[in-house]
Amino acid sequence: MADTKRTAVLTGKVKEFWDERGRLNDVVIKQSGLTTKRFFNLDHQAYKEGALPVKTKELLGLVASLVLRCDDCISYHVVRCYEEGVETEELEETLSIGLVVGGSITIPHLRRAFDTWNELQQGGADG
Amino acid sequence: MADTKRTAVLTGKVKEFWDERGRLNDVVIKQSGLTTKRFFNLDHQAYKEGALPVKTKELLGLVASLVLRCDDCISYHVVRCYEEGVETEELEETLSIGLVVGGSITIPHLRRAFDTWNELQQGGADG
Amino acid sequence: MADTKRTAVLTGKVKEFWDERGRLNDVVIKQSGLTTKRFFNLDHQAYKEGALPVKTKELLGLVASLVLRCDDCISYHVVRCYEEGVETEELEETLSIGLVVGGSITIPHLRRAFDTWNELQQGGADG
Amino acid sequence: MADTKRTAVLTGKVKEFWDERGRLNDVVIKQSGLTTKRFFNLDHQAYKEGALPVKTKELLGLVASLVLRCDDCISYHVVRCYEEGVETEELEETLSIGLVVGGSITIPHLRRAFDTWNELQQGGADG
Amino acid sequence: MADTKRTAVLTGKVKEFWDERGRLNDVVIKQSGLTTKRFFNLDHQAYKEGALPVKTKELLGLVASLVLRCDDCISYHVVRCYEEGVETEELEETLSIGLVVGGSITIPHLRRAFDTWNELQQGGADG
Amino acid sequence: MADTKRTAVLTGKVKEFWDERGRLNDVVIKQSGLTTKRFFNLDHQAYKEGALPVKTKELLGLVASLVLRCDDCISYHVVRCYEEGVETEELEETLSIGLVVGGSITIPHLRRAFDTWNELQQGGADG
Repeated sequence: MADTKRTAVLTGKVKEFWDERGRLNDVVIKQSGLTTKRFFNLDHQAYKEGALPVKTKELLGLVASLVLRCDDCISYHVVRCYEEGVETEELEETLSIGLVVGGSITIPHLRRAFDTWNELQQGGADG
Repeated sequence: MADTKRTAVLTGKVKEFWDERGRLNDVVIKQSGLTTKRFFNLDHQAYKEGALPVKTKELLGLVASLVLRCDDCISYHVVRCYEEGVETEELEETLSIGLVVGGSITIPHLRRAFDTWNELQQGGADG
Repeated sequence: MADTKRTAVLTGKVKEFWDERGRLNDVVIKQSGLTTKRFFNLDHQAYKEGALPVKTKELLGLVASLVLRCDDCISYHVVRCYEEGVETEELEETLSIGLVVGGSITIPHLRRAFDTWNELQQGGADG
Repeated sequence: MADTKRTAVLTGKVKEFWDERGRLNDVVIKQSGLTTKRFFNLDHQAYKEGALPVKTKELLGLVASLVLRCDDCISYHVVRCYEEGVETEELEETLSIGLVVGGSITIPHLRRAFDTWNELQQGGADG
Repeated sequence: MADTKRTAVLTGKVKEFWDERGRLNDVVIKQSGLTTKRFFNLDHQAYKEGALPVKTKELLGLVASLVLRCDDCISYHVVRCYEEGVETEELEETLSIGLVVGGSITIPHLRRAFDTWNELQQGGADG
Repeated sequence: MADTKRTAVLTGKVKEFWDERGRLNDVVIKQSGLTTKRFFNLDHQAYKEGALPVKTKELLGLVASLVLRCDDCISYHVVRCYEEGVETEELEETLSIGLVVGGSITIPHLRRAFDTWNELQQGGADG
């Protein structure tokens, strides 16, 4: 129940996603101007420790990504939730709120979110 | 014009989608709590025979999936429409309403919907 | 159960919406070019009798409008459904599919859809 | 910093919204079938105390409502956050994540969210 | 055809919108933290003269607002387009692209966009 | 800075997308009725030279596709922008407006848009 930080061991499709994400971020940085660079910076800042702990902020990012149905964003926040020590029950309750708010149209993304979580738990010794 | 039920013979990409959908549903069931389980149940019930026939309900699910632009949801309802004996003209008119309501942004999904329908018709002897 | 056409007697907020809609359509027609005019024409055509009856097409338009959460579009299709002789149970099942597909975020629109239906039933002698 | 529950004193536009919401819920209940009733029930359940506290769940509901840009849903969760003892800094950080995820298109809703929060703080003796 | 800057004389509903927008921006500024303040700044910067002229950027903001169906955002960009000397034909072509991309669900917003444009032209001596 | 038209040399993933798009368009044309055919025609017309040049219209189509988060639509307009002689700075500013309007949820699509642009520049001798 304590929030023990974890190191995510990425394998299979999750690792593939993470590597491609890194490669494409380099492509963006090379070609983008000041507005885009500042946005990326702001995006990073928004999830930093504040009145709310990082863990809660990652859950907020996850539910927002689920109802907006963005697989890449969901995968990213699922990995981050894992790293921040989110428990399976906490992840599940967050996803279930997204499911109720966003409806059955979110189910394909919900499926892949649980699949990613599953892979992370099997990859990590402390999962 | 009569609604003769059909058995969908899944091949190629449609079969791949269907199998992966089944595998992931198992992943969800294993990890999900009561809210998610009840939602899945409700989702199932909503398409049952009532004042409206199942066929009409599947067309409603299809057009909702098209305007919300969810490929997996569209593929699922296209298969179900096929099973319920929907005629090509009926499917086409449903998709065209979705296209007009949802705009050109739905076209990539419309393309794949017709492709799935095409595969189903070629796979089934009674297509 | 038969599809008896009805004449919608618009009162209160529904009448207000309908009149404003008419006024604004005139504003659009005066200022719009060929693409917009053709789109309006196409929008009209999509709901005409075809392989699917007009009533079913209005239900399709309604569910698409609900999941996309457009109050004006919902009000329009609720009035049209009333005119086409849609029964309360049929309307309710259509809205419930939209609710399940689109999630709790559609509830404010669902509420107003039922309110409009209620007003139409009280306004019409044949409701 | 402790989560002291508060009683929300609704005034002005917030009270208007809340009363109309109640009136329309009655309209829905009278006309809706089993699927819709069960959905409303599920919606209620999703926010109950579990592995995550009610307060966190209301913040999740709020950020989901902001990125999906539903004023009624936002107003509802802002009132609920107030009742659950959410601090202004916590609300603000939640909204700022929604703003970054959902973009400038959420700003009109962000403005009204802060306005509602403002009214609640002025209405309540313990704000 | 030349881009003569214009002064927008706001009247009626457009003035009401603009004043409320100003009042609410003050509410946001008072309660918001660094992330939100930086976002507002970034939002302002994105529309400044660059490789693309301000006029084109306002048309980009307008079409994005139309397909995302945000009335407040549309009203804002319509006023800004007016100030930047956008011609009626240019505005109309921009809106028609939004209509085709976003579908009939954008029509209620298209109607109000033309209505706002109409009010601006009647309010200004150089309209 | 002049708008020199370019010939896009499609390679790799971009070519794959373009070919599949062509194949699927044929599938649609074979099975679709009058409404869909007219819509495709209208979609084509909306981007033709008018009061606004084709280049500006393609930028409008691109930003609309980005905020609606449709990869296929984005890829199509990026190719068309390349053909119309859009400069990297112009493309970047257009995408940055989409990013600010649509938020971080558009970032995965932004990444792929820049990647496509990159491939086009490397493929073409005049890139």
